[in-house]
Amino acid sequence: MPDYAIGVDLGGTNLRVAAFRPEGQMLEKISVPTNIGAGREHLIQTITEGIRKVTGEHLGERLLGIGIGVPGFILLEKGIITKSPNLPGLENFPMRDELEQRLATKVILENDANAAALGEKWMGAGRGVDDLVLLTLGTGIGGGIISGGQVLHGYLGMAGELGHILVDPRDGAAACGCGSTGCLETQASATAIVRMANEEIQAGRSPGLARHADAVTSAVVYEVAMEGDAEARSIFERMGRALGMGLSVLINTFNFPLYLLSGGVLHAWDLFAPVMLEETRKRSLTLRQSDTRIDKAELGDLAGLYGAARLVL
Amino acid sequence: MPDYAIGVDLGGTNLRVAAFRPEGQMLEKISVPTNIGAGREHLIQTITEGIRKVTGEHLGERLLGIGIGVPGFILLEKGIITKSPNLPGLENFPMRDELEQRLATKVILENDANAAALGEKWMGAGRGVDDLVLLTLGTGIGGGIISGGQVLHGYLGMAGELGHILVDPRDGAAACGCGSTGCLETQASATAIVRMANEEIQAGRSPGLARHADAVTSAVVYEVAMEGDAEARSIFERMGRALGMGLSVLINTFNFPLYLLSGGVLHAWDLFAPVMLEETRKRSLTLRQSDTRIDKAELGDLAGLYGAARLVL
Repeated sequence: MPDYAIGVDLGGTNLRVAAFRPEGQMLEKISVPTNIGAGREHLIQTITEGIRKVTGEHLGERLLGIGIGVPGFILLEKGIITKSPNLPGLENFPMRDELEQRLATKVILENDANAAALGEKWMGAGRGVDDLVLLTLGTGIGGGIISGGQVLHGYLGMAGELGHILVDPRDGAAACGCGSTGCLETQASATAIVRMANEEIQAGRSPGLARHADAVTSAVVYEVAMEGDAEARSIFERMGRALGMGLSVLINTFNFPLYLLSGGVLHAWDLFAPVMLEETRKRSLTLRQSDTRIDKAELGDLAGLYGAARLVL
Repeated sequence: MPDYAIGVDLGGTNLRVAAFRPEGQMLEKISVPTNIGAGREHLIQTITEGIRKVTGEHLGERLLGIGIGVPGFILLEKGIITKSPNLPGLENFPMRDELEQRLATKVILENDANAAALGEKWMGAGRGVDDLVLLTLGTGIGGGIISGGQVLHGYLGMAGELGHILVDPRDGAAACGCGSTGCLETQASATAIVRMANEEIQAGRSPGLARHADAVTSAVVYEVAMEGDAEARSIFERMGRALGMGLSVLINTFNFPLYLLSGGVLHAWDLFAPVMLEETRKRSLTLRQSDTRIDKAELGDLAGLYGAARLVL
């Protein structure tokens, strides 16, 4: 009777469920809309139905448990999501216990960035490395810290809020959703790229970006930068500089051998990475004196699924 | 036959050696000048003689080993100090092996700030806490991270360089000994206080400080501030603001329950702590949503001795 585990990635848009062998082989994967507007009970049913669809393919095998990556703060001991801007209906709901009861198997909740870091450690760019940090660059910036092969949770499960490393302490720096200003997230997320592009457009500095004024996305800014537009390029340089500042803080703090970046914005690596690496070297004696690696993650948006399954293995 | 351990604090000025019971009781302590000008062999002899003086009081007891706190980068596996601005003669010398040979007992080297953090965890302000960060405010700023009850070393033993968290990314920010600019150490160490005071004096902004222009120390700046001098007070507020920025980064990263500060500058707590705590709260959602504590360390300059002994227990 072969063993398997289920990984779930519960996003604000899509719910994805996949089965894995304990050795790391992904068996099958399904994706359905999360449809959060339909309310909590509908969402819980969507999750349980998605999981049953996958477990239905493994009758006669032994399910070791279900790991679920969630975008938000999680009280690990209680299995409760305390704060999730993308899934407000699940806040302060005993999600883990409810799912364990309905599915009659072990369920573990984990922050999605932590799950992604664990996934990269297990089957991605961090294979064979026991200590690493992952920065997930998306709408916001998340962080996952793997120390001694395990997720570093902190005493309430809130560790790894690396999007809120300070990179611009000036008064009047960009406001962050966390209530502070000048966080890494305000300088290097996809949202930050769009904001900086809109600032360029409004200041009349970038005709190249102005042509897309109605529909600025980070992908558009990338395209305009690749066409050679200086202002669009400078946005990625600012992003790289901010990432370099954040990485230097992490390297000086942890002295881990590996720091990974993931997220859709990675396709712009060639635009931001040279400045990022230069800034990190400038600000980290530890980096200059060691063979510390800064690299791209490998599993893309599947990292969280892998890591979620790994939680129960 | 009772057990005991030896803790050594090898400073640039004084060498201190103390014996401890495994339960944490300090038995006796000696202090002798380090006299680094007399060369390496003299220093090694000073260390071994200091240790023998203490072990001589415990004939018939069982020595469990010797822990040594050293100001510098240490390659833990090799027992070598790779970089120590205060003890340049010991750089790249197989110090641990040499001492183990001469003393015929187990020797463990540790960075002094790490040892101090471990000491505070063992018998100081961190008793009963398994996860904490200590910032040592002195000539420079050191850091020690205790995670799961153990020192977090990083893969080369260089973790915890918390004096090099970035708090002023502006071009032209104060230069740091690490090669970067705007590090926490350039804003909140005793050296930084003196530098900021001299800047006030040279700019003609502080008659109160100018009266001490020949001999500015952090203690002098403290005295002038306590007399009500606005510029001297603002120096401690800048220090507090920088510490708040650094602490917020640490709290957002680790979500540990306890962050401790130590060092002689702590006597100015009432001058810098209110700004520090306000800045930390502003910049850390994690702090605002939890009962995270920021507090003074308790063992003063004995923390490193305690922690060094704890290394071998």
